[in-house]
Amino acid sequence: MLEKIKSLLTREDLLGGHFGIEREGLRCEISGKLALTPHPEVFGEKLRNPYITTDFSESQLELITPAMDTLEETYDFLSGLYDIAVMEIGDEYIWPQSMPCIIPEDKKIPIARFCKCPPGVDAESYRQKLMLKYGGKKQLVSGIHYNFSFKESLIQKLHTAYAPQLDTKSFKNSLYLKVTRNYLRYRWLIIYLLGSTSTMHETYVEACGKQLKKISSDSFSSDGALSYRNGDCGYQNKTAIFPNYDSVGEHIASLEHFIKEGTIESHKELYSQIRLKAKDNGNLLESLQKDGICYLEYRSIDINPFDRAGISLNDLYFMQLFNLYLLFKEESDYTLWQEEALENQKAIATHGQKELQLKKDGNLVLKEDWGMEMLQEMRKLNDTLGLDKQDVIEIMEKRLKDYQLTYAYQLVEAVKREGYVAACLNLAKQYKDEAYKARFVFKGYEDMELSTQILLKEAVKRGITIELLDRADNFVALKKYGETEYVKQATKTTKDNYISVLLMENKVVTKKILKDKGINVPMGGEWYQLEDALCHLSDLKNKPIVIKPKSTNFGKGISIFPEGTKEEDLESAFKEAFKHDNTILVEEFIKGKEYRFLVIGEEVVGILHRVPANVVGDGVHTIKELVSLKNQDPLRGKGYRRPLEKIHLDETARLFLKAQGLDFESIPEEGICIYLRENSNISTGGDSIDYTDFICDHFKQLAVEASHAVGAKICGVDMMIENVADSKSSYAVIELNFNPAIHIHSYPYRGKERNIAHKILKLLGFLEKRPC
Amino acid sequence: MLEKIKSLLTREDLLGGHFGIEREGLRCEISGKLALTPHPEVFGEKLRNPYITTDFSESQLELITPAMDTLEETYDFLSGLYDIAVMEIGDEYIWPQSMPCIIPEDKKIPIARFCKCPPGVDAESYRQKLMLKYGGKKQLVSGIHYNFSFKESLIQKLHTAYAPQLDTKSFKNSLYLKVTRNYLRYRWLIIYLLGSTSTMHETYVEACGKQLKKISSDSFSSDGALSYRNGDCGYQNKTAIFPNYDSVGEHIASLEHFIKEGTIESHKELYSQIRLKAKDNGNLLESLQKDGICYLEYRSIDINPFDRAGISLNDLYFMQLFNLYLLFKEESDYTLWQEEALENQKAIATHGQKELQLKKDGNLVLKEDWGMEMLQEMRKLNDTLGLDKQDVIEIMEKRLKDYQLTYAYQLVEAVKREGYVAACLNLAKQYKDEAYKARFVFKGYEDMELSTQILLKEAVKRGITIELLDRADNFVALKKYGETEYVKQATKTTKDNYISVLLMENKVVTKKILKDKGINVPMGGEWYQLEDALCHLSDLKNKPIVIKPKSTNFGKGISIFPEGTKEEDLESAFKEAFKHDNTILVEEFIKGKEYRFLVIGEEVVGILHRVPANVVGDGVHTIKELVSLKNQDPLRGKGYRRPLEKIHLDETARLFLKAQGLDFESIPEEGICIYLRENSNISTGGDSIDYTDFICDHFKQLAVEASHAVGAKICGVDMMIENVADSKSSYAVIELNFNPAIHIHSYPYRGKERNIAHKILKLLGFLEKRPC
Repeated sequence: MLEKIKSLLTREDLLGGHFGIEREGLRCEISGKLALTPHPEVFGEKLRNPYITTDFSESQLELITPAMDTLEETYDFLSGLYDIAVMEIGDEYIWPQSMPCIIPEDKKIPIARFCKCPPGVDAESYRQKLMLKYGGKKQLVSGIHYNFSFKESLIQKLHTAYAPQLDTKSFKNSLYLKVTRNYLRYRWLIIYLLGSTSTMHETYVEACGKQLKKISSDSFSSDGALSYRNGDCGYQNKTAIFPNYDSVGEHIASLEHFIKEGTIESHKELYSQIRLKAKDNGNLLESLQKDGICYLEYRSIDINPFDRAGISLNDLYFMQLFNLYLLFKEESDYTLWQEEALENQKAIATHGQKELQLKKDGNLVLKEDWGMEMLQEMRKLNDTLGLDKQDVIEIMEKRLKDYQLTYAYQLVEAVKREGYVAACLNLAKQYKDEAYKARFVFKGYEDMELSTQILLKEAVKRGITIELLDRADNFVALKKYGETEYVKQATKTTKDNYISVLLMENKVVTKKILKDKGINVPMGGEWYQLEDALCHLSDLKNKPIVIKPKSTNFGKGISIFPEGTKEEDLESAFKEAFKHDNTILVEEFIKGKEYRFLVIGEEVVGILHRVPANVVGDGVHTIKELVSLKNQDPLRGKGYRRPLEKIHLDETARLFLKAQGLDFESIPEEGICIYLRENSNISTGGDSIDYTDFICDHFKQLAVEASHAVGAKICGVDMMIENVADSKSSYAVIELNFNPAIHIHSYPYRGKERNIAHKILKLLGFLEKRPC
Repeated sequence: MLEKIKSLLTREDLLGGHFGIEREGLRCEISGKLALTPHPEVFGEKLRNPYITTDFSESQLELITPAMDTLEETYDFLSGLYDIAVMEIGDEYIWPQSMPCIIPEDKKIPIARFCKCPPGVDAESYRQKLMLKYGGKKQLVSGIHYNFSFKESLIQKLHTAYAPQLDTKSFKNSLYLKVTRNYLRYRWLIIYLLGSTSTMHETYVEACGKQLKKISSDSFSSDGALSYRNGDCGYQNKTAIFPNYDSVGEHIASLEHFIKEGTIESHKELYSQIRLKAKDNGNLLESLQKDGICYLEYRSIDINPFDRAGISLNDLYFMQLFNLYLLFKEESDYTLWQEEALENQKAIATHGQKELQLKKDGNLVLKEDWGMEMLQEMRKLNDTLGLDKQDVIEIMEKRLKDYQLTYAYQLVEAVKREGYVAACLNLAKQYKDEAYKARFVFKGYEDMELSTQILLKEAVKRGITIELLDRADNFVALKKYGETEYVKQATKTTKDNYISVLLMENKVVTKKILKDKGINVPMGGEWYQLEDALCHLSDLKNKPIVIKPKSTNFGKGISIFPEGTKEEDLESAFKEAFKHDNTILVEEFIKGKEYRFLVIGEEVVGILHRVPANVVGDGVHTIKELVSLKNQDPLRGKGYRRPLEKIHLDETARLFLKAQGLDFESIPEEGICIYLRENSNISTGGDSIDYTDFICDHFKQLAVEASHAVGAKICGVDMMIENVADSKSSYAVIELNFNPAIHIHSYPYRGKERNIAHKILKLLGFLEKRPC
């Protein structure tokens, strides 16, 4: 069998597919108490944010990844969602495990609030009914829902090879039903390997109603417990429900029967370990009938407290091997398989950490023996099909053999050491700190430009669907309210017209237009031949000017005469400049410092000044040590992956220090700023300093006018200003930029961090409230 | 003196300035009769077209250049205006000389019609008054008005050197007044050298009221006449008027006196040989007082029938030398200088072709002696100041000495040979033919892209002011109704947003979006490694595909399998392709021919199909001869200066013919089309064929939808279609282009010429009628 599969399917067919994860998480205070604050407004309307919403409770965040093509992407996106969400909840934390934090009595548990939008969906009163039926506390138990579908090519090839007589829908249904039945049979292994609800806070004990042992001052557990969530203490139907899984038709009929009987109110109330999912899950039963099974949802997995995302990538790899195992594993014909499987589930959940016997087709078998048999079969599958996941299997083999390697055991140990609340909060704090330190990157998108990562994070936060059109090009689509906006490199949008961009691209034309509008620009000219330039020396002498090659690198060939100079000096300057380029620019020299004004729409949303790489002395450390200390800032990285670059003590720096009579071992006095090079580029370790609140409105207005002059909506205006506090100060607009970086304003070295991405989304019209 | 000037002023200072020309021209029928049709609507409202309007009569075109920096530009623009205007008057012609064509009696001469726009200006009733006062026929005498100002740097430097005590306005006034007085003194020379109204049609004789000699069946002249227009037969004030030119104040006072006296109704009725011009000529006298003299208008110059523009570039060069001569020439203090100058003018006008004596400061002097003295002085000025215009002076010296070299003489000779109407019409026909042959270029802008030249011509035609922002970049500004639109390369406009362009630029993203919208695109993929590609052979076998390097030259490395093929062939094809590039594209092979749909706004404005370079046999000529004949088409040029390229019989063509068993000397049979190469690029001599009217609406609609999908307003849609007449035919959109060439549609090799520029101007909003 496996040999035939091998000849039929590629590794890509086998390991591909679509993967999506939903992860719940309670918001809690620093005391460990459930946060009673509203769901942050920044996430928008709950039913319209596809990524960050709530589940049962207003305090119960739900993070939802879209269906993604690889496990790595899914895992990264989930981590990214965590990072985004946790940065928006103020001084609250996301409780890192499935069993709740300190929770109040039922009537104080805030049910998630919804606007009645879209009309007809009353999410709020549905939750009130559940509260009455099941109690509030159990609703707060959070979990992971793992959704997956196989790669279409795998399904197609198996279809052709094994059941060409069936139509596609029927074949696909039969395939997913087999996986479903096998999942139910073998789910105990997943609960054992990933289970981690082995202890609960004293405020939850009442909901559990069992004899439990106090294991720390604030928590309880029972002997060998592995997953309360999957046992009687978890959230489940009032009575065990065994739907039919023989065919989609029979499955639907059985559910309809339960509904008619009143056991459940609708298919949504079926709290099974697995759910069949269709194209239109709003009308699940109709859509299952019409379109067939689209994907499966596994609901057995506890939140892994030891991973920020709530599930580890390694466990996700295992799940995919498990799916293939379920797909290819022959089924037995034992009749009471569902009842037996439930029994096994409960046994593992309640006493999984102990040695125990499970029932396999009516026969008793040691948990470890059965588990090892399955893992051996998965290993064979892995080896034969070249899936290259033996490491993953090895880890699971060890975990199976040694319960001390389970998350459940490790959590209990931590709780015993630190106490329930403290142990969990310490993890939550660590994850929140990690999120803060990486606030300028979007996990899973680190290969893209920082500006794009920042924009995507903001979009996701606000429930705007993101889609990558061309990753390498930083070309994305943003979607909400049925509208699509394409954005390239964060600031290239439909709001700017093509001509604005072309005007800005052409420096000569830009100047002409700004000058026509009465905005100061450095006067100047271009020369293409030395002889022509030399004819104009008399016109240029004694004027403050800069002579420079049109395209220049690192300042080569540039001469600056701030006070003007005599004709001979000008002649030498021209000769030098013409060594570097065929086109030489002469520009008026403007006094002052250069500032980057970022204009979005009608507003200056950030102003930045850049200073060359530097260190400030403390009278103790050498320059070398000071640089090393400064480079520890997480904002500094290498190769444009962070908002700032690490300072590099290179030959240029050595020479620059030497000119000041210093070297790398010099110890500058306290408070003395030592510059390490001349140029202020961020790329060579320069500092970015936010000036937004320190520049008088006059210049902000000028920047907006300059941007308007070329019809730009997003524009980086580079302006020289002598005195930023004086509206009468001399100034000149040097350049307009049509693709201004936003990360430099969002995460400056010093000064306030500016949420530029928000302004862009506003410009794109995504932040207006829309009627349903 | 000249030595001091030399040290003070550069050649640039001396020869620079601003130059503008107004040239009138009667529209006439092929019979030589004045055309009684209305001024073409395409030129828009007469008072709002700064380039093409009418003067006195509805049939009297007036072509007006803007003030330009060089004489070459001015001359070219004037020629360009001629070309534009003459192409829009159907089967009429522009009468090529100052004296009218066959004209009707006064009451049948159509006075120019004006909408009452702007309000308050009643141009029509003003003309009716003139008709009553001066008669209609004389109003039809057309001329050249030459406007000029010196370069500001010349004025500034002279000011500083010679009269620093004066304020700028006073100095400038005194300078232009000196030139004015000298112009009046020496104007006889200009009339002699450029005069060309030496004969008139019999229908004009009555207006002249002199004894004239019949010199051909339809025309009259008098002995030695040189410029009737500047004599008593021309249009002039009822009585000679001598305004004061000593100062601006006195000049204004003298004009006010004439107006008060009733000699003239306003300053506009002063038909002098020169006019002082101000910043605001609508309120001339006030503006002269306030702002001073801005430039001068010379009104003595007859239309040169031997130049399409109405004045030759050489004569313009001479005028500039003459201006400098007037500027530096010391004035005499002879009192009756104005009366004497008028006498000299009349003498030259009436008998200039004869030897005659003029009056100089009250003394008689031979015309030739005086003229030679002036030309000698100009020669000295030219030589001393290094103006390099000695050739121009030499021509004028010869013309002065030999009246047979005057335009006046040459015109009379032509009229004697051919008759008045025929001689003039032959010139008019020749000029119109030249304009037609060069209809795809804009004289003076030939260095710019053809598409831009075509757009600029259309703009000028419709009275939209054009301005070059960056000539080399084909970046222009178009202005009308106080609004400015910037346009680059004819099709890059504010109407397209930046993202549309970026979407089109990225071929992969374009395909994705089109596919999402349900538009067929060739399916395919990209591979970066041979091994990866080889893994997919089974997926690709037997499918119609093209395998090609991402960037390819001349089809190298491309394999096409229209019917699909087996895996071995695919493998070889991939190996071959990877020899040429690191990225290999696999695309679905689409049957049919490729068409370029040009979409502007909501409309397909042109569809083009390109075929490889070819000749069609006639059973007589060799391929080489046929190519040579085909290359004579004025549409064909070299280096993208024409809509089509000349066919080049190169090695590729030789090999391609050889494969067909042919060579350059083969004589193809009549009607047989012989292709000379494989590729259909216009750049290698391919033919462009207009298909706009032959492709069913379905595909036009698809092209518009494709353009809309990326939000484009101007878009070149490349589509493969199997059967253009069948809306059910298979098709695929290959590519969208954001900077489609327009000249290929405007001037195809075969098929209807499409006015694309008009559609662009419409899109830009310039063609909507606006209220005053």
